Amino acid sequence: MGIRAITNNRNVTMDVIKELKIKIQSQNLWAKEVSLKRNEYLIRAGSIERYLYFVEEGTIRAFIEDEGEEQAIRFAYPNSIITALDSFFSGKPTRFNLQAIKQCKLRAVEKEAFNNLMGSNEENSKLFLQMLQALVVQQMDREIDILTSLPTERYKRVLERSPHLFQEIPNKHIASYLRMTPETLSRIKKS
Amino acid sequence: MGIRAITNNRNVTMDVIKELKIKIQSQNLWAKEVSLKRNEYLIRAGSIERYLYFVEEGTIRAFIEDEGEEQAIRFAYPNSIITALDSFFSGKPTRFNLQAIKQCKLRAVEKEAFNNLMGSNEENSKLFLQMLQALVVQQMDREIDILTSLPTERYKRVLERSPHLFQEIPNKHIASYLRMTPETLSRIKKS
Repeated sequence: MGIRAITNNRNVTMDVIKELKIKIQSQNLWAKEVSLKRNEYLIRAGSIERYLYFVEEGTIRAFIEDEGEEQAIRFAYPNSIITALDSFFSGKPTRFNLQAIKQCKLRAVEKEAFNNLMGSNEENSKLFLQMLQALVVQQMDREIDILTSLPTERYKRVLERSPHLFQEIPNKHIASYLRMTPETLSRIKKS
Repeated sequence: MGIRAITNNRNVTMDVIKELKIKIQSQNLWAKEVSLKRNEYLIRAGSIERYLYFVEEGTIRAFIEDEGEEQAIRFAYPNSIITALDSFFSGKPTRFNLQAIKQCKLRAVEKEAFNNLMGSNEENSKLFLQMLQALVVQQMDREIDILTSLPTERYKRVLERSPHLFQEIPNKHIASYLRMTPETLSRIKKS
């Protein structure tokens, strides 16, 4: 089982998610459907994550709290997946809060069912490996984003990598994700 | 193939590295041995990474450059592994610089040999999955570290998770990793 080079994280991830969904569907592994109103929480910091969610409609913000401030760290849109990943992998309470930005429809697969599926044959393991490698590369990119001191540079990096973000997510949350004020973000976008 | 819960990242990672090393050894997959003098580079930003390195002796610092400043992002010590991970997984030029802090001895396995090994049977795929999941959780922890605004809190988080760091790595590099001045780090350590 060789590992394909990841030339475009988002596309690879989108393809992998589609494939995953088909597999879950065909084996009837959906545990539940979840509807969220705007601002409703999918999970709060301190809880144990038992599900992986596929977003059908709506958008979700993952954030951590730091000194009473909410720091956006990830977003999910239709056709992407989301979970409190730290807890999903470690079994320990999550540090993340997942909250609906817009009204959402999600489908959930349980952690055990997902892990069993991913380990059931070589093709699936390969898919999971690809997913994890893409995730590692994305997280490296995110680390570099955060460590980039010039706000304009942070903006450019994210715009290039995730242009869809700017269509889907309100400015104030993007500003938090980019670690700048909404005013700075507006000024950069105009310039 | 179920996936074991990762209860202690460092221990799991150390166990996985030991197992990996035995497998590489028994199949004679070492591509080369590398010796580095203090301050010598293993790889510089802009290069393509072809190897995964096992540290036998010495310590290595991974850093990125931002506006002329070097930002430490990872360290490697004896019995840990290191590579320019972004490039190793993506095939694209790395953003990282890997430099010896102390004189080093490393053993390298080539990317293709490593990938073939990891895909050669179910046990190895499982090992690789564990490694990747532990890595994802570590990266999440690192992201939360960086986003934690109080220097004392950042210090505490890293001290709790990686006490060995403070034995192995000079203060100025730890300070850079913790995003504070060496003076602030000294003050926090004393208090």
